[in-house]
Amino acid sequence: MSIEARLQQLGIQLPAAPAAAGNYLPAIRTGDLLYLSGVLCALDGRMTHTGPVGRDQTVQTAAEGARVCVLNLLANIRAHTGSLDTVARFISLTGFVNAVDGFADSPAVINGASDLLVEIFGDAGRHTRAAVAVNGLPKNSTVELQAVVELKPRA
Amino acid sequence: MSIEARLQQLGIQLPAAPAAAGNYLPAIRTGDLLYLSGVLCALDGRMTHTGPVGRDQTVQTAAEGARVCVLNLLANIRAHTGSLDTVARFISLTGFVNAVDGFADSPAVINGASDLLVEIFGDAGRHTRAAVAVNGLPKNSTVELQAVVELKPRA
Amino acid sequence: MSIEARLQQLGIQLPAAPAAAGNYLPAIRTGDLLYLSGVLCALDGRMTHTGPVGRDQTVQTAAEGARVCVLNLLANIRAHTGSLDTVARFISLTGFVNAVDGFADSPAVINGASDLLVEIFGDAGRHTRAAVAVNGLPKNSTVELQAVVELKPRA
Repeated sequence: MSIEARLQQLGIQLPAAPAAAGNYLPAIRTGDLLYLSGVLCALDGRMTHTGPVGRDQTVQTAAEGARVCVLNLLANIRAHTGSLDTVARFISLTGFVNAVDGFADSPAVINGASDLLVEIFGDAGRHTRAAVAVNGLPKNSTVELQAVVELKPRA
Repeated sequence: MSIEARLQQLGIQLPAAPAAAGNYLPAIRTGDLLYLSGVLCALDGRMTHTGPVGRDQTVQTAAEGARVCVLNLLANIRAHTGSLDTVARFISLTGFVNAVDGFADSPAVINGASDLLVEIFGDAGRHTRAAVAVNGLPKNSTVELQAVVELKPRA
Repeated sequence: MSIEARLQQLGIQLPAAPAAAGNYLPAIRTGDLLYLSGVLCALDGRMTHTGPVGRDQTVQTAAEGARVCVLNLLANIRAHTGSLDTVARFISLTGFVNAVDGFADSPAVINGASDLLVEIFGDAGRHTRAAVAVNGLPKNSTVELQAVVELKPRA
């Protein structure tokens, strides 16, 4: 089954690809690697999850925020390549979690992103990962994800 | 126009390439990708912008600090490759902003870097990007930039 | 001398490769680059260094924690490739240091990692690097390291 068909089967509709907040690009291909800009907890320009975990968000709501980030990541991949079926596999995911000092559960938050990637892409969605807490993110987003993806070689 | 000529036209003089603060290298080429070490707000060894945004710096002064980081990035690229004209394009920029808790405007700070890259390199300066706030940076720098650049293939 | 022999000479025994804390992989090869997941200050599942530098750890104990991270990084490389002798060289190291607000000495902490890499791999252990302080890490680890390594081309 193609990934685009799999998305439909899961009932997932991607948001509009997020607008860049400056003089940069959402995605750049170099060789077979697609570098992706950081994406936030926002749908069609409206923030869905803001504020730090441990004060404004729980681990569970922040994990939902991480899922929203993935939708934006996928929207950027599709906008750049034309189709999610161009993806060979995910390589790297860096998850920044807006959190109160000493927050130790960023992996549980970023699991919201990792689980969705594997749900959609299967083994090709499995990636290397780092999760860290930080004391602030753009637009007060609860999560920011930065990724590198391997695309199928050009025909 | 060559990038080196463009720098002159803009009246930009690069600082000395910053010394590494440990057992590492400022730049490494692998294939056509040039990985670059994190650079700080310093000119010729003297810090120019220190302390967190929201206390010691404003968004505007921090954006100037981000420009200073770019000068060091370019100094490292030139020192490694011999000339900025070896750059095919910028691929990835990660901008860490030293800031008070809850700082939500890191994109406005890192725009200082992105805008300068595009001013110098045109479309080849456009990159993917992530901006995050953190609660401390080396030497109390206000900004740290980490980058990956694509070089022109070796002749 | 091979790297595996060098490890023995130094009396370094690698821990078990750390288990992933979610739906991701410790290492993925793309081309000749090996991307590695973030590793923590833990040996065989037990945390060795926790809490922020400036409160629960000193720069010196945190630097020892950074060495522990390197052992896990190497365990992951060996588990993925079969032998550390597959490494051509280290490319990139991002060091996140769990620290109190305003911590300015993350490079001194990450030197614990950089120095060990060079001790083991010689010039091939020299890497590009960024060090930043953050306000929280998984399992309250004092240090987290994320790396990219270049492997020798497949025969």
